[in-house]
Amino acid sequence: MTRRDGAPIVGMIGGGQLARMTAEAATALGIGFRVLAASEHDPAAQVVRDVHLGSHESLEAVLTFAQGCDVITFDHEHVPTAILDALSAQGIAVRPSAQALGHAQDKLLMRAALTKLGAPCPAWSQVASADEVSAFAEEHGWPVVLKTSRGGYDGKGVWVVADATEASDAMSTPLGAGSFWLAEQFVPFIRELSAQVARSPHGQAVAYPVVQTKQTNGICAEVVVPAPQLSEERALQAQELALRIARELDVVGMLAVEMFDTGAGVLVNELAMRPHNSGHWSIEGAVTSQFENHLRAVLDLPLGDPSARAQSVVMVNILGGTVGDLYSAYRHVFARDPELKVHLYGKEVKPGRKVGHVTLLGANAEELLARGRHAADYFSGTIDE
Amino acid sequence: MTRRDGAPIVGMIGGGQLARMTAEAATALGIGFRVLAASEHDPAAQVVRDVHLGSHESLEAVLTFAQGCDVITFDHEHVPTAILDALSAQGIAVRPSAQALGHAQDKLLMRAALTKLGAPCPAWSQVASADEVSAFAEEHGWPVVLKTSRGGYDGKGVWVVADATEASDAMSTPLGAGSFWLAEQFVPFIRELSAQVARSPHGQAVAYPVVQTKQTNGICAEVVVPAPQLSEERALQAQELALRIARELDVVGMLAVEMFDTGAGVLVNELAMRPHNSGHWSIEGAVTSQFENHLRAVLDLPLGDPSARAQSVVMVNILGGTVGDLYSAYRHVFARDPELKVHLYGKEVKPGRKVGHVTLLGANAEELLARGRHAADYFSGTIDE
Repeated sequence: MTRRDGAPIVGMIGGGQLARMTAEAATALGIGFRVLAASEHDPAAQVVRDVHLGSHESLEAVLTFAQGCDVITFDHEHVPTAILDALSAQGIAVRPSAQALGHAQDKLLMRAALTKLGAPCPAWSQVASADEVSAFAEEHGWPVVLKTSRGGYDGKGVWVVADATEASDAMSTPLGAGSFWLAEQFVPFIRELSAQVARSPHGQAVAYPVVQTKQTNGICAEVVVPAPQLSEERALQAQELALRIARELDVVGMLAVEMFDTGAGVLVNELAMRPHNSGHWSIEGAVTSQFENHLRAVLDLPLGDPSARAQSVVMVNILGGTVGDLYSAYRHVFARDPELKVHLYGKEVKPGRKVGHVTLLGANAEELLARGRHAADYFSGTIDE
Repeated sequence: MTRRDGAPIVGMIGGGQLARMTAEAATALGIGFRVLAASEHDPAAQVVRDVHLGSHESLEAVLTFAQGCDVITFDHEHVPTAILDALSAQGIAVRPSAQALGHAQDKLLMRAALTKLGAPCPAWSQVASADEVSAFAEEHGWPVVLKTSRGGYDGKGVWVVADATEASDAMSTPLGAGSFWLAEQFVPFIRELSAQVARSPHGQAVAYPVVQTKQTNGICAEVVVPAPQLSEERALQAQELALRIARELDVVGMLAVEMFDTGAGVLVNELAMRPHNSGHWSIEGAVTSQFENHLRAVLDLPLGDPSARAQSVVMVNILGGTVGDLYSAYRHVFARDPELKVHLYGKEVKPGRKVGHVTLLGANAEELLARGRHAADYFSGTIDE
């Protein structure tokens, strides 16, 4: 299984930017890294030596891919449970396990599990009709957040509906196999937070600083590290909550717990069991990046220090605009800001699509944010100087 | 030439660890990166998507490799001048140029050029016989350092001879094509320093902090950043010297100027026109790594900030010992030191061979060195706890 130098091979299913950035960490550590990508144009497939092309929904493709890998992990949550079970049945280490990953794949499973373990959540209920949404709203008020239990990401599969008519419209969307409707209380949050932890099979876990995230149209737009004006006590509570969820759900690898900060406390919004957009800052900004700690966790190696390397770190996503040629922006943004760290994912530019991110380290989050937004806007083409 | 997203393709000749680490920087920047490697087992060939296998001494292999690249650069200095000239004759951008690179390939050329521009050097002379070495020693004393003008690296091609007999023995070594004997004064230095700069075709240049290096058997063993107890004035002089050499020799990309610190001043020992072992600390330790700045320089992009991210940074090379399986050391070294950054190059372990390095950032160089040496020794197998 392992290579001639004793290093294991980690197989990551999915060839997106998370796999691409994990590859950089694998290269540094000298760990074998194989990617199952849908296309040779996928971000990771462009740069990784050991690429298999195939669908994550094909049992045959996944089993062939997994041959010779020491552990299988994920760039996304979309691998069908039946395939994960088949991998495990063949004795292949799948991390996180199918059972743990179920909570990131299925929001009903996730809500039920979190409620059982007493984690704070918005009020929620499975619903099958607009009438049931209205009944939910009578108790918790309009608007209601409607979600499909499976298949949603980056704002897809989520509707905020103001009344029964809008609920009915949303629910005319066909549900994927095994997916159901979930109604959640609309939470008037003051901001969103993310608490990331890494956890290994033998139970070691480390918690990254709690960060503030800003979503635009359901897509992560900005991250500020640490979350400003979050008391040490509240930050510790959020980290402990994330560590408890990781332990109780037996997560292995990175776990991101996205939270609403209501001012009075936090409510869990989403879980992701993989490296996450809210942790991209850690490549330069932490002693150990989320990508390296994901690898260390799934390999059951001792975890690295998740501390920030600067007083303040900001990450701003680069969203596709009207300019297809991202590269030419380098001449401007690099000349303007020699401290800017840029990551481009090799993706075709489409309006609103995540195509890269920028990171800045320093002392003043507002000043770093202004510089990061300028660079991201210049890449997008919304400003030209 | 360029890819569909507008990004250029950088072709690096040589598939060693420098190409491997440059690949990580290219991936982050979204720059196309192609490597000409001698073997699929070369460090970079194991991880880079776009690998050509072939010899850097084959005109056909190099020309085929260069087709479709926007710029050609180097992992090592061993590409014959005739091949570099052929590339340039075809209108392919070669950076650094054959003319500049000549000074890193040929120590006689280098000494002549440095002497012409007034850079401080040990006394030197071309010699053709032991008698000429003795004549040189009459003026400058024994021992004498004998070098082959071409083909030396990591201590190879260098002899310290105590008398005419030893000189005669050394000079019985057959010289490679175009190589001559060079005698240099033995310098009783108190330590070695390295000053690295990046320079772009339009003449922008940045200087990294001057570092202290420790060589063991001609191989870089340790780097401390910044060089301890080097006055700001002396550090500035060393940086200015490196910047002047880069400008006068028209270097494009990274230049490392290795220097002897005699206590009274510095003397130039060697030049390297590529990323260099004395700059590996910059991956985590600087705002912009030497690998990223090498890419930015050869692409004529504005250069990144070379400042250190911590008060003190140390790098310790991992040398091969008796243990072939480097990976298993992770369980110990990562548990012992969660802040440790490790880079393994995927090379087969041979005694004394550079197979990786470790980096630590902090406040106290001595303390960081002790931790770095422990980790490196554990990988090598010279300690087992």
